Parts: sequence; structure tokens; C-alpha cells
Amino acid sequence: MLGVIGGMGPLATADFFRKLVDATPASEDDQHVPVLIHSVPQIPSRPAAILRNGPSPLPALLAARDRLLAVGATALAMPCNTAYHWYAQLTDGCPVPFLHIVDAVRDQLTVGSGQVGLIATRATLAAGVYTRLEAEGLVLLSPDDSQYDHSIQPAINAVKRGAPVEAGPLLEPAIEGLLDGGAAVVILACTELPVALDAIDSPLRTRCIDSTDALARACVRWWTRGRG
Amino acid sequence: MLGVIGGMGPLATADFFRKLVDATPASEDDQHVPVLIHSVPQIPSRPAAILRNGPSPLPALLAARDRLLAVGATALAMPCNTAYHWYAQLTDGCPVPFLHIVDAVRDQLTVGSGQVGLIATRATLAAGVYTRLEAEGLVLLSPDDSQYDHSIQPAINAVKRGAPVEAGPLLEPAIEGLLDGGAAVVILACTELPVALDAIDSPLRTRCIDSTDALARACVRWWTRGRG
Repeated sequence: MLGVIGGMGPLATADFFRKLVDATPASEDDQHVPVLIHSVPQIPSRPAAILRNGPSPLPALLAARDRLLAVGATALAMPCNTAYHWYAQLTDGCPVPFLHIVDAVRDQLTVGSGQVGLIATRATLAAGVYTRLEAEGLVLLSPDDSQYDHSIQPAINAVKRGAPVEAGPLLEPAIEGLLDGGAAVVILACTELPVALDAIDSPLRTRCIDSTDALARACVRWWTRGRG
Repeated sequence: MLGVIGGMGPLATADFFRKLVDATPASEDDQHVPVLIHSVPQIPSRPAAILRNGPSPLPALLAARDRLLAVGATALAMPCNTAYHWYAQLTDGCPVPFLHIVDAVRDQLTVGSGQVGLIATRATLAAGVYTRLEAEGLVLLSPDDSQYDHSIQPAINAVKRGAPVEAGPLLEPAIEGLLDGGAAVVILACTELPVALDAIDSPLRTRCIDSTDALARACVRWWTRGRG
């Protein structure tokens, strides 16, 4: 049974669940991944902890992990890129595999070098969650400060307040800017962002790697391998 | 924390989660309902148990309930109409409120008498899950046998195999038939059915009561009242 540490935010977790179901090759209910989703959004802000020395979400993340393990999770995943800042602590002493969202994204990349766009929260960038891709030879391009302030952060906030249709058009110019700047593809490295593009059926989705969908597909592979 | 006994089927449970999030008045993550979703579709078929004396899903339903209670659920809900056949056994000795999907649907009904359409699985009808509405003065109209065989059951099966876009057009004539026959509104009393209509943005959705959305809204009211 897959355990999902979610709630960061709730709409992104719901999006992950739908993508997990959609990505599963199944013609009957019982061919789907058994999953327990812990979506408890009453947890300290990840960006505030990383950028402004706010209270750490780690105790709440560990509590979620342990609840999921207690009821039988045999693998874990977490549809929130920023929260992977605490991956080392979350996997310390963890008796089951904990799928990493950056590994899942890398599995979707068809390029192994050159420029790739990366749209993430400032906290994800500051924490270096994606730097392992640079170590493998990719050059990561991100929006500039002005774009963060005027499009990326407002888009994330709009999804979090339940207005993904407003978020989509805020995001598209930033993606186009990265593509025009030479990025072969753009990683949507915050799980709120795919919700925004999906809400407006953006044609730019085909130029992006959706970290939520990538993690869902990695979970399906974990499940399929275990059964095979 | 809300506990959700799901997986019947997985896509319907994902649809419930999204509707729970969408129905919550929230501008920040932490204003959302904390929820633990148990979506384990490896459970005996409810229709087979009710209609053909197949193995009972009750032990699996009780195990799901007890897992959710063990990790702190303070209310329970189950986005599957047919499974409410076992409501008495599931609430027996249960220390927390267990929201009933038929109560949630009734809360959405603006008519208190007259004819109302009811599209459900044959098992839900045979089990009499919705008969309490008849006791309150409503006359329930359902599709005939031929429509069950040629549109309702194929639509449910299509959603279960991940093809809701195929399911929508199968369903629309049955809904129109009930409306033409005098139903003031049509209850979609199987949680696969709203997924089908949503997938094709059917204009008939405004003539229907979506049992999934009704249950989600009842859960939000439970949460909001408890905090207020």
C-alpha cells in the first residue's frame, strides 16, 4: 500500500491522486494502486521555515510518515517539491522506500544535458532540491525576481485559494520566457503549477514536465513492479 | 480529521477528494479539511455480494474503518452509494459520526414531494439504500432494465476502466428520459456517474444531484461546524 504525505496543498494532493489513478493501466477497480492519502494541511509553512527561519514542518511530516507506516504503508511519496528539503530526515530510519520527486522528474526528461527550465518556489530553489540535476550536466534556467513576484508566486497563491483558472494565464508568459531563452523543456517543480495549466488546458503543457504526474507515474511503476 | 473509506472505485474517490477541496471556503492551505483517504480497491464487489451472494466486502470495510479510527479520524464518510448497504454494521460500535450519503443527497434536494429520478447500481436499488426518501414522500423513478443493460452499467464500467469521456454520452439519454418522464431532478446515486458527466461538461449536470458532491459538502459542513 502506497502512503502519501499530502496536504501541501490540498488541491495539489487531489491532483496527484487523480493523476495516480489516470496513470494506472487498469480495467477493473482492483488493478489500481492501494493508497492511503494523508492530507492534513495544518502544518507549518515550508517556505517560511526555509527562507525566514519559521517553525519547522519536520515534526508534522514525521508524524504523517509514522501514521502511514503504522497502518501498513509499504512505500511513501510526497506531492510537494519543497518538502523534499527534509528528505534525509524523513528517510532516516524509514523501513520502506520513499520515492523522490526529483528522481521521478528525471525519469521523464528526454535530454541529459543542455538547458532546462525550472519553475519552483523560491524555497525549493534556496534549499537546492533540484541541484542534483545540475550535477548530472543540466543547466537549470529559472524565472527572474520580477517574474517570481508578479507571476509565479501569485499563480501559486491563486491555486491555493482555489482559483486555478486565474493562475494559468499568470504562468504561461514565464514558461514561454524560459523556452525562448533556450530551455528544451520546463520542469513544473511546484505541485500547484500543473493544476493551473490543466485548469486552462494550456497548450504549453506539452512543453513542460509535470512533477506531480512524474511522481504519480513513479508510484505506479513501484506498484506494477512489486506485483509483476 | 475526516476519514474516507474509498477505493470503490478509485476514480470516484479521487473525484470526491477534488470536490471536497473545491467545496471548502478557504484562501489558505490550513483552512482545508484535514483528511485521511483509504483508497484500497482490493475489496470484494459490492454488487456481487448483494445480488449474487458473493463474498461480503464487510470485513474489508470494517478493517478500513478501524485503520482510519486508529490514526485519529473523528468522522467518517464513504463515497460509494452501494456500500451504504452495510451502514448499520459499520456504525455499530463506531465512536465517531459516520456521514450518510443519502442524508447528504437529501440536503441538496429542493423538492420534498413528487417525482425524482434515481440512477444507481442495481445493487443499490435492490438493497434499498435510497428507500428512506420514499418514506419521506418522494416517488423515485429509475431507468428500465434495457437502459440499465445498455447505458447505465456500460457507463459505470467505462469510468471504472478509466474512460469517463466514453461514459458521459451513454448516460445522457437515460437522464433525459427520467426528466421527460416527469422527474423534477435526477439523483446520480452512484459515484462513478458524476465523473462521466463532468468529463464531457454535460449541460445535464444542472438537472442532477451529484451524490459525490453532496457528500463532500456534508463533510465540509461537519468540519466547519466543529471549528465554528
